[in-house]
Amino acid sequence: MAGNTFGQVFKVTTFGESHGPAIGLIIDGVPPNISLKDEDIQHDLDRRRPGQSKITTQRKEEDKIEILSGVFEGKTTGTALAMLIRNADQRSKDYSNIKDLFRPGHADYTYFKKYGIRDYQGGGRSSGRETACRVAAGAVAKKILDLHHVKIIAYTLAVAGVYAKKRDYSVIEKNLVRAPDLEAAEEMIAKIEEARLNCDSVGGIIEAVVHGCPPGLGDPVFDKLNARLAYGLCSIGTVRGIEFGTGFDASTMLGSQHNDKFYMDGHKVRTLTNHAGGILGGITNGEDIVLRIAVKPPSSIAQQQKTVSMEMKDSTIEVKGRHDPCICPRVVPVVEAMIALTLVDALLIQRTISNS
Amino acid sequence: MAGNTFGQVFKVTTFGESHGPAIGLIIDGVPPNISLKDEDIQHDLDRRRPGQSKITTQRKEEDKIEILSGVFEGKTTGTALAMLIRNADQRSKDYSNIKDLFRPGHADYTYFKKYGIRDYQGGGRSSGRETACRVAAGAVAKKILDLHHVKIIAYTLAVAGVYAKKRDYSVIEKNLVRAPDLEAAEEMIAKIEEARLNCDSVGGIIEAVVHGCPPGLGDPVFDKLNARLAYGLCSIGTVRGIEFGTGFDASTMLGSQHNDKFYMDGHKVRTLTNHAGGILGGITNGEDIVLRIAVKPPSSIAQQQKTVSMEMKDSTIEVKGRHDPCICPRVVPVVEAMIALTLVDALLIQRTISNS
Amino acid sequence: MAGNTFGQVFKVTTFGESHGPAIGLIIDGVPPNISLKDEDIQHDLDRRRPGQSKITTQRKEEDKIEILSGVFEGKTTGTALAMLIRNADQRSKDYSNIKDLFRPGHADYTYFKKYGIRDYQGGGRSSGRETACRVAAGAVAKKILDLHHVKIIAYTLAVAGVYAKKRDYSVIEKNLVRAPDLEAAEEMIAKIEEARLNCDSVGGIIEAVVHGCPPGLGDPVFDKLNARLAYGLCSIGTVRGIEFGTGFDASTMLGSQHNDKFYMDGHKVRTLTNHAGGILGGITNGEDIVLRIAVKPPSSIAQQQKTVSMEMKDSTIEVKGRHDPCICPRVVPVVEAMIALTLVDALLIQRTISNS
Amino acid sequence: MAGNTFGQVFKVTTFGESHGPAIGLIIDGVPPNISLKDEDIQHDLDRRRPGQSKITTQRKEEDKIEILSGVFEGKTTGTALAMLIRNADQRSKDYSNIKDLFRPGHADYTYFKKYGIRDYQGGGRSSGRETACRVAAGAVAKKILDLHHVKIIAYTLAVAGVYAKKRDYSVIEKNLVRAPDLEAAEEMIAKIEEARLNCDSVGGIIEAVVHGCPPGLGDPVFDKLNARLAYGLCSIGTVRGIEFGTGFDASTMLGSQHNDKFYMDGHKVRTLTNHAGGILGGITNGEDIVLRIAVKPPSSIAQQQKTVSMEMKDSTIEVKGRHDPCICPRVVPVVEAMIALTLVDALLIQRTISNS
Repeated sequence: MAGNTFGQVFKVTTFGESHGPAIGLIIDGVPPNISLKDEDIQHDLDRRRPGQSKITTQRKEEDKIEILSGVFEGKTTGTALAMLIRNADQRSKDYSNIKDLFRPGHADYTYFKKYGIRDYQGGGRSSGRETACRVAAGAVAKKILDLHHVKIIAYTLAVAGVYAKKRDYSVIEKNLVRAPDLEAAEEMIAKIEEARLNCDSVGGIIEAVVHGCPPGLGDPVFDKLNARLAYGLCSIGTVRGIEFGTGFDASTMLGSQHNDKFYMDGHKVRTLTNHAGGILGGITNGEDIVLRIAVKPPSSIAQQQKTVSMEMKDSTIEVKGRHDPCICPRVVPVVEAMIALTLVDALLIQRTISNS
Repeated sequence: MAGNTFGQVFKVTTFGESHGPAIGLIIDGVPPNISLKDEDIQHDLDRRRPGQSKITTQRKEEDKIEILSGVFEGKTTGTALAMLIRNADQRSKDYSNIKDLFRPGHADYTYFKKYGIRDYQGGGRSSGRETACRVAAGAVAKKILDLHHVKIIAYTLAVAGVYAKKRDYSVIEKNLVRAPDLEAAEEMIAKIEEARLNCDSVGGIIEAVVHGCPPGLGDPVFDKLNARLAYGLCSIGTVRGIEFGTGFDASTMLGSQHNDKFYMDGHKVRTLTNHAGGILGGITNGEDIVLRIAVKPPSSIAQQQKTVSMEMKDSTIEVKGRHDPCICPRVVPVVEAMIALTLVDALLIQRTISNS
Repeated sequence: MAGNTFGQVFKVTTFGESHGPAIGLIIDGVPPNISLKDEDIQHDLDRRRPGQSKITTQRKEEDKIEILSGVFEGKTTGTALAMLIRNADQRSKDYSNIKDLFRPGHADYTYFKKYGIRDYQGGGRSSGRETACRVAAGAVAKKILDLHHVKIIAYTLAVAGVYAKKRDYSVIEKNLVRAPDLEAAEEMIAKIEEARLNCDSVGGIIEAVVHGCPPGLGDPVFDKLNARLAYGLCSIGTVRGIEFGTGFDASTMLGSQHNDKFYMDGHKVRTLTNHAGGILGGITNGEDIVLRIAVKPPSSIAQQQKTVSMEMKDSTIEVKGRHDPCICPRVVPVVEAMIALTLVDALLIQRTISNS
Repeated sequence: MAGNTFGQVFKVTTFGESHGPAIGLIIDGVPPNISLKDEDIQHDLDRRRPGQSKITTQRKEEDKIEILSGVFEGKTTGTALAMLIRNADQRSKDYSNIKDLFRPGHADYTYFKKYGIRDYQGGGRSSGRETACRVAAGAVAKKILDLHHVKIIAYTLAVAGVYAKKRDYSVIEKNLVRAPDLEAAEEMIAKIEEARLNCDSVGGIIEAVVHGCPPGLGDPVFDKLNARLAYGLCSIGTVRGIEFGTGFDASTMLGSQHNDKFYMDGHKVRTLTNHAGGILGGITNGEDIVLRIAVKPPSSIAQQQKTVSMEMKDSTIEVKGRHDPCICPRVVPVVEAMIALTLVDALLIQRTISNS
């Protein structure tokens, strides 16, 4: 209830401040006998970590994962799986310039109003650093989805209004912005560089597609799969909106256009279109799950901005440091992780009603 | 986990098929000593019920609420509050034309794949009828929010691409489509009438604004208030997307534009703009909460459509009956209800950490 | 959290005051395709209802079950299963003699301190009447356990210090007190009759045995099966203690005596003794689950007793009405129900980690 | 659901195997601004750790606590509080003698049947070592209860049939067995020494008393405070039963004796007796909470015992090592911890319904 747990059967609980000794997580509900190595997790962590390229923050953090429990001789045991990531240099930083001020766009003010206490060292739990734990948990979830041939692909669809014009999955990991279109990627990167030079930041859109999801996942009424996905994805700090399938454009369509008609493809039930994005009545129909999320421009910018102080006086602030001018490429693995966590949960929940 | 419960402290569990004897709900976690009368609930139910106007379905259902427990001498007792709505004429209908077919856009196929059983009487739990229980629960939540001066306003912002040009809250309940702009409402109604004549349906956008929400509501990490709102609102069957504050447009903004700068308004901390929609780092900042949802065109249309049968053969279907050509006006109170349920839950959760 | 829900996958939520219009329940998480008829539930309700015999209360309540949802053509659909029991004559009673007094042994005083409101009509949610909903839910759980050949037997082991000397299951339903020993039953009944004549009441011990439970049910650490059983059984209002296997006597045994040694019985692993009561480290080992609960003498007695009033003055009270002088025979089906609910939950949870 | 979480508002999730790199826990739901130092936790950990005296195991483990998050400048922040305890020398031990055998009385066999995998290094999650995390969490809970003047006292009431004859709380921490009677303590210690010399073990009874608990804690129906206490305490691996107030003896009492009559003690409502153990209808009445648990003799004994092997063959086993001949003195702080966790949870839950 205090917000640090995600999932109903595959339950992930995370902890850790950006500037404390460590961050980490416990996953309770991992089925036993799943092969799991440190490298399985490190791979996605490396895709998320800072300092990857010229368009991300230049902070260097190694984000080395340590598995503390729940794995024996390379296999999960079925008991609580804990992982730890030590923070580097967490005490060296100087916060004197932000200690008494609320950074615009950040959660400094709202956390203070909620808890009546100010932890001025970075963003505490509201820092994007907590997403490393999501990625670590998601990597375990992906190992299970792999066994069921479910594949999640996420990529930067747009940056600062520049859209990818094609979906070439093979190039996603081959450009700095993780776009599925090398040409558009160049344009996007130029926009990001420009923002950085202006001490500014830019937003974008991330799209995700899930192949191979079996029909029947998701629950009726409140726990519709799209509702659970919206919950998980909107909990990523930087997300301002989500849409499924045709999304907001469905608001301008006719029912006769929007309804995905069924047909037989050999022995398989398929739909002629996929406006619903693979989910009908909250339950998967076997078509690709398709969704898009809106990513805001990062709030940490080195420009001088108006704000107020802890003493409730008008003031100005400059948020110095090495910030991301566009967070999209680093959010891509976080999006994959939240989708993986949601799907693996739905998959394990579905087992409870199957007649095995 | 099976999907019929919403909320963590103010927990709502609903039941009932559209064509069974009754639908209903239990709310567990209602604080005691809240005044509650049948009329408090009936009012919103009447705003949701079918047969209200020429642009909604002509089905007549009275949707009379019966409180079964948890209220004593006009006040809540703090124990489980149950409510019942009997279905009228639930056994009279003829399903022979859809019994062996999967309706496009509906959950017939996905429920069958999930449960291995076909309840062919209407949509079962996937029918929009279940939203009556959301509205009933929401009415109780609103009674508590009223005591805290929190006010939720929802309205139809757009239908079939026609947008309201102003937000005049005083006219919302004075036009059939529940738009905040009488002129645009006329245009919207014309679009709906046209769709109905063509045996078709249209979608739209609903916007909601929450006034007077205290700062500090919502939880960190996974239970950010926007994540919980997205979860609640995307669980309404007809919703295809949600956005907060500036929403998807944030993807094209610069950080220097998007950051809402703080200033002192007398003794109160305010922001100059409200791109964040009242929520920072998942926690309310005291500004208006603003969100929009995309509503798809209803799937039940009387046109002939391609589909497949239970015997896995290609076929066609015509979904006869008295359907809604546009569901927006009836979804407005459902949107209010889901927001009310989410906010009252956050409000009660916040009490657990206050130093009382 | 407000206390009216039991179970994690097979989740039962109950409602209803003893003197309101109805009591009832929702079960969420019932697997689909389970045969279920009204009679399946009515049978156990009849074993629990008042007025069965000369040694139970002479109040007559029919406790007729009505299934409202979740069943279609005699089979569960997998969606929320709701059931309703209307209360008879709920408004006829005169409460003037207890309205302003706290009955000793009852929850009148503690509910008032908790909620700050006094519902003086009978016990409200603390009335034993709520156990009818447990029995109804338990009857559904038993249908699932039947499919897995798990059999629960409960019986009155002792009344007022008189113990059954044998365990003849065939006679349990053939004597008024539900003892497994006809001779002891006669003595027990005499004790109960004597208490009734003296306007007094007596307590007892109920024992339960579960045959055929597969090994591997229950979870580590906090959700050990015995912990979940203790939770469920101690939530029955009348229970003052629980013990498993050898129970409190284990405190006087040596480890060499108490350890149940394993041996091979053909191809099956068995234990030579069953001091552990079928559960090792919180997980079933395939031996019989054995437990006993202590049942207090009913608090409603027609004698004059000291108490205090709502005005915080010393006073006296006489709790008139038709009360049970010994509740054991009517608690037997409630004990079975709580065991059934706990086991079916463990069974469905176990499916989430099996590699199907 | 997988068993490693306890609590509804004050939620504790633990992890770690006895022979892995570390054990630890996350507490989610700690209110902010509670003073908390390492020493607060270390004190109780030291009371639980092995190697304290001649009557506990001679294994030496330091059990040094490290707080990883949720505390800033000596105060809780309201966010997830994580703690870590590194295991010493976890890889040095030789398991060859038990690797292929199921130890009687232990969970080796049941874990293997549950998970289909054998982690033969000590007991894994079923090892008593996990209780160190309960004690650490309980220490945080006690800090909150202290602020409300709620005091928990637990002690060894009996060992091997030798009972304390008085309750002198001042001597509990002054004798090796933590009994409230120095004379009886000597006798108990003699019984333990005798068992150790015989390569055997003995059980006992622990009693706990809670002073100063406010009336109104606990929830109706399933979450009665006694039910939650039974759940928490029976989840301690060594516990075979629990009773409240008069407990099993209530089964032989008359209602007229067992009912605790109310009277006015100045302006305070009190009861003349406390057979109910401070809880009526599942909710505290302000009297002392009193409960007793039965503790089995430890299963690890150095005698040769019959058992079966992983290859399903009859065999014998000798469980070598430095084991506890009686676990009671080390279980006392674990009992306190589980009571503290249950009470703090009830206290925070109660805030959700108070009209603040």
